[in-house]
Amino acid sequence: MSEAAPETSAEPFCVKGFRLGGVVAGIKKRGGPDLGIIIAEGRVACAGVFTKNLVEAAPVTLSRARLVQEPVARVVVVNSGNANACTGEVGLKDATETAVLVAALLGCESRDVQICSTGVIGAPLPMEKLRTSLPVVLEAAHAHGLPEFARAIMTTDTRPKMRGESVLIDGVEITVAGACKGAGMIHPNMATMLAFVLTDASVDGRSLEAIWRRVCGRTFNAISIDGDTSTNDTALCLASGAASEQALTSEGLVAFEAVLDRVAGELSRDIVRDAEGATKAVSIIVRGAANEADARTAASTIATSPLVKTAIHGEDPNWGRLVAAAGRSGAAFDPARISVFVGDVLIFGQNRWHGALAERLAHEVMKRREFDITLDLGAGSWAHTVFTCDLSAEYVRINADYRS
Amino acid sequence: MSEAAPETSAEPFCVKGFRLGGVVAGIKKRGGPDLGIIIAEGRVACAGVFTKNLVEAAPVTLSRARLVQEPVARVVVVNSGNANACTGEVGLKDATETAVLVAALLGCESRDVQICSTGVIGAPLPMEKLRTSLPVVLEAAHAHGLPEFARAIMTTDTRPKMRGESVLIDGVEITVAGACKGAGMIHPNMATMLAFVLTDASVDGRSLEAIWRRVCGRTFNAISIDGDTSTNDTALCLASGAASEQALTSEGLVAFEAVLDRVAGELSRDIVRDAEGATKAVSIIVRGAANEADARTAASTIATSPLVKTAIHGEDPNWGRLVAAAGRSGAAFDPARISVFVGDVLIFGQNRWHGALAERLAHEVMKRREFDITLDLGAGSWAHTVFTCDLSAEYVRINADYRS
Repeated sequence: MSEAAPETSAEPFCVKGFRLGGVVAGIKKRGGPDLGIIIAEGRVACAGVFTKNLVEAAPVTLSRARLVQEPVARVVVVNSGNANACTGEVGLKDATETAVLVAALLGCESRDVQICSTGVIGAPLPMEKLRTSLPVVLEAAHAHGLPEFARAIMTTDTRPKMRGESVLIDGVEITVAGACKGAGMIHPNMATMLAFVLTDASVDGRSLEAIWRRVCGRTFNAISIDGDTSTNDTALCLASGAASEQALTSEGLVAFEAVLDRVAGELSRDIVRDAEGATKAVSIIVRGAANEADARTAASTIATSPLVKTAIHGEDPNWGRLVAAAGRSGAAFDPARISVFVGDVLIFGQNRWHGALAERLAHEVMKRREFDITLDLGAGSWAHTVFTCDLSAEYVRINADYRS
Repeated sequence: MSEAAPETSAEPFCVKGFRLGGVVAGIKKRGGPDLGIIIAEGRVACAGVFTKNLVEAAPVTLSRARLVQEPVARVVVVNSGNANACTGEVGLKDATETAVLVAALLGCESRDVQICSTGVIGAPLPMEKLRTSLPVVLEAAHAHGLPEFARAIMTTDTRPKMRGESVLIDGVEITVAGACKGAGMIHPNMATMLAFVLTDASVDGRSLEAIWRRVCGRTFNAISIDGDTSTNDTALCLASGAASEQALTSEGLVAFEAVLDRVAGELSRDIVRDAEGATKAVSIIVRGAANEADARTAASTIATSPLVKTAIHGEDPNWGRLVAAAGRSGAAFDPARISVFVGDVLIFGQNRWHGALAERLAHEVMKRREFDITLDLGAGSWAHTVFTCDLSAEYVRINADYRS
């Protein structure tokens, strides 16, 4: 897997068929780039996975509706600094006007414009600033613009998040590259996860949809910071087809899904690694579950337990909290058959604690910045992994600060 | 409602038909009373509500099985300092032996002994200490012993928790009094909620079961500290019938349930008020829900959201987090019809923020130690209240400390 190296690489995450840009529109109070754009050369396949929160922001409502009609887009506009959420009729009008403006500037249909917003909830979009800056950002877009785009979508992320990879599939070089921004632990409001992955592979919209939904289930929907989901979460995948006129074969699609998994996986883990107040990034692996739902619910309950997360922060191999969280999750298993590992160290199994030495070894593993915790439920063969972080006093300080 | 005044009242929570006691058995590492007992004069009606955690401690397994057979008990033995959880076959053997020992000392059947344990998970019960101290605590029990019992069941609670009330029902003076110990936020392990409510009312076991289940749903099962449920949670209600030979009438049962609600309600709120690291106790009231399940799930999701709990800690009327937590809870509602109140202050409704003045007033309400937050979903007429606390940096410090 290629490492993120935004500023030094000669061809930083350049994907054929796309131009990207980011500019300062003056939406963010503290300044900095806050308007980003992705422009495809023509209409391209586009798959979207959106927040499941019943309270969804206006841009989510519009963008989701467009992709349900047809999994296609020409352009993606993203602003940071304002979420356009809980803004009622005005919010929908503003999001619609943004799409119409971009479509007019680019000479496309407004239904081919995807819109994303992130930032403060409940305040109306500053439309005057958007009207002024949309032509500027369109002008600024270029083939090597991913780093500028990645900076423009940041809120309190401490660093832009980009990942990319090129591989041979069906004998053709295919590039997959993307950017995302952080979720959770973000002051002053609900945090939003936005993720954009571009490829020059030739995949039709419906196939891309199915693949992207599976990939997101293993990546962007398998990370947890504080269990809260935002009103604006959006993950888009766009495929230009510029690498080849030949559509991917069925073997090619399998290889393509594996590349997407790697790029989206690293991007999603970058979000956890950059979570404010977090000092550890941990894979919670539940295996031996009776079915997929049990594996998911057990992993997610453990990953969101404040007692587990504070134990991780304290580097404490507190298997009692892990077993109890699994026990209340609703997953079916026989408590006598559960095993708990920290890294490779078995600390509880066959209904007994494995002693002070095992616990000391587990404590050593937990001193690392990244490690695995595995619970084998002994009830079947399903597994699920959630990537999460610790809960620190710093997290509380950041999120308890009165907005002002 | 009578106020808890353990040390000053002349007849502190004396319930006819019961003797109570508490002694030092040496189970707690740091010393102090750690073995408590409740002895009824004969076999009395006993209703139990136990943890729903799949991983349950040995005493829970035994006690639950006994009450399922017949809702009757003669004696309740409680130790603190050791949870007898995740202890496998040995744990069941030890709990059984404890019941047999107590039964022999008291001259009753071992099936009439209820056992509760709270404390460290995974270590075997120190049976030698129990064998020595069980005769001592039986000897120590007396009619005014509730305060001693309440102290013996404490783990890291900062104060014993007792509540009681006497009322006229069906022309007879009925007393309801009880004690409990804290859940959540407790170092070094999972915390357990144990609650014991005694009455001299004359109620048969099956009626008491039905009433107690409803009361617990509104009290001990309607508080939330950190969303984690313990392997040992137990709430018992015992009715001696010593107040009158006449069973309560159906009107009397309604009045009796109301008294139980008040006593159990205050006891359960005392647990939240004493939660370690907490600085605020807040009623999360969800009303206008389409059904009871929606009211419960929305209130519980809001009450366990780290973003909501840190906002409460920061006295920040962050309605965006409240609305978003309701939105992801799974409860059905139209986001345009939701209203959010802090105390009596409407801060969000009819799809708009109610301005800086409303927010300032709400901020003033949040400076109190106890207040209400109300979400009206505008979808029906069901309501549910969860009593919860804030999430402080102190909570993280307490729970992240490495056990040693």
